[in-house]
Amino acid sequence: MQNIYDNKKFFEEYKSMREKNVNANNLIENPIFKSLLPNLKDKKVLDLGCGYGNLCKFCEEDGARKIVGIDISKNMIEMAKKTNSSSKIFYFNKPMEKLDEIKEKFDFVLSSLAFHYVENFSKLINNIKNLLSPDGYLIFSQEHPLVTAFTSPAKKNIDCKIDIEGKRYYLLSDYNNIGKRNIHWYINGVIKYHRNFSTIINTLIENGFTIEKIIESYADEDILKIEPKYKYQNDRPYFLFIKAKLK
Amino acid sequence: MQNIYDNKKFFEEYKSMREKNVNANNLIENPIFKSLLPNLKDKKVLDLGCGYGNLCKFCEEDGARKIVGIDISKNMIEMAKKTNSSSKIFYFNKPMEKLDEIKEKFDFVLSSLAFHYVENFSKLINNIKNLLSPDGYLIFSQEHPLVTAFTSPAKKNIDCKIDIEGKRYYLLSDYNNIGKRNIHWYINGVIKYHRNFSTIINTLIENGFTIEKIIESYADEDILKIEPKYKYQNDRPYFLFIKAKLK
Repeated sequence: MQNIYDNKKFFEEYKSMREKNVNANNLIENPIFKSLLPNLKDKKVLDLGCGYGNLCKFCEEDGARKIVGIDISKNMIEMAKKTNSSSKIFYFNKPMEKLDEIKEKFDFVLSSLAFHYVENFSKLINNIKNLLSPDGYLIFSQEHPLVTAFTSPAKKNIDCKIDIEGKRYYLLSDYNNIGKRNIHWYINGVIKYHRNFSTIINTLIENGFTIEKIIESYADEDILKIEPKYKYQNDRPYFLFIKAKLK
Repeated sequence: MQNIYDNKKFFEEYKSMREKNVNANNLIENPIFKSLLPNLKDKKVLDLGCGYGNLCKFCEEDGARKIVGIDISKNMIEMAKKTNSSSKIFYFNKPMEKLDEIKEKFDFVLSSLAFHYVENFSKLINNIKNLLSPDGYLIFSQEHPLVTAFTSPAKKNIDCKIDIEGKRYYLLSDYNNIGKRNIHWYINGVIKYHRNFSTIINTLIENGFTIEKIIESYADEDILKIEPKYKYQNDRPYFLFIKAKLK
């Protein structure tokens, strides 16, 4: 997993985006993610790719008794400790590839917009299974397969044609081509991993999870009224949310 | 549900396509569908949209003790009785909207490439649930959401741009726009219903099914060697297969 959030230019751009109250995380991703969360009272929660710790803080406010947040980025963990600290929240600077170092069980494993950075999804899901109590839940969001499918190594989007009305047309021939994508996001060379729907769902099932709910997000008219620039989140489903229970 | 298969021009074109041994059903759809079937020995099977009855016949040869095939089209049921009859197979000219008229239980409900013609998916799945024995399976294929999403009311494909190399680019903004599609397939005005992934999966779950496996098909190199014209099945996943178990 690439530690892009410790790249100076990237992190500054990212920080400035997140510091605006109007951003895709606050407007679109967070409300859907929270709608999938069961009551967390007295539960133990692990947050993978916790970033600033906003979700950890939300879990604490919702009554969780212990929350562990891990992130590959030192920048992120520093920000989390500064802005979302609590005696019930424990932050560790650790990549998702090292989940086997965690030696306790959780009722919920959560992850917001981070799984598309992980190369070995099968190993990740297997590690998560080992960290969950019986009847535990994995609830995660990631970029939708109709976003991760594409490669845009520079600002120029090579998988997309735009017509005179501004409508976007996408090349889908790489949708079933699972693997690494090298894209431009603030900087060139951001590495993500594309998996199609069936790969994501089957990997969860093969590791003992039952799928309980799936959501594919769009930026709706209300969101576009607040921020018209999220029109690109209306061209295609942008985030994918999955709630899965360990059998 | 539209009874397109009893339209004379449509049925003649369809028949002539199916009479070729090399067609997308034989080359791509059937092998994947059969790979999802458990052993059918002594089982009772219901086939929804049975068409020519090929799948019913396959189930009989695989040891099923009773197979019921239904189809909205009289043409299809006539062909099925002519070409795939057996003392264990019972064909009825009946649309999938009238499943509540069937008063027995089955171990397996199967359906090959027919669900995208049904308007009320939730009612369909609920009816199937009522026809299944405990631990029964629903195994079906349909056109992939990245096929049903698009509208092409005439031969001209309005949701697609083709570049000078022949690559196809698709407009995805209607992917989350669930509902009726009016397309051209041999004739104008063929009615299908688009549902995105999450709608399909969530409807199954809400009706008590557990998802066991999903497959998204492509025409691979081996298939293109046999029939290069299936290149359009390589531009995007073309068929979706789901194996679901009643809890």
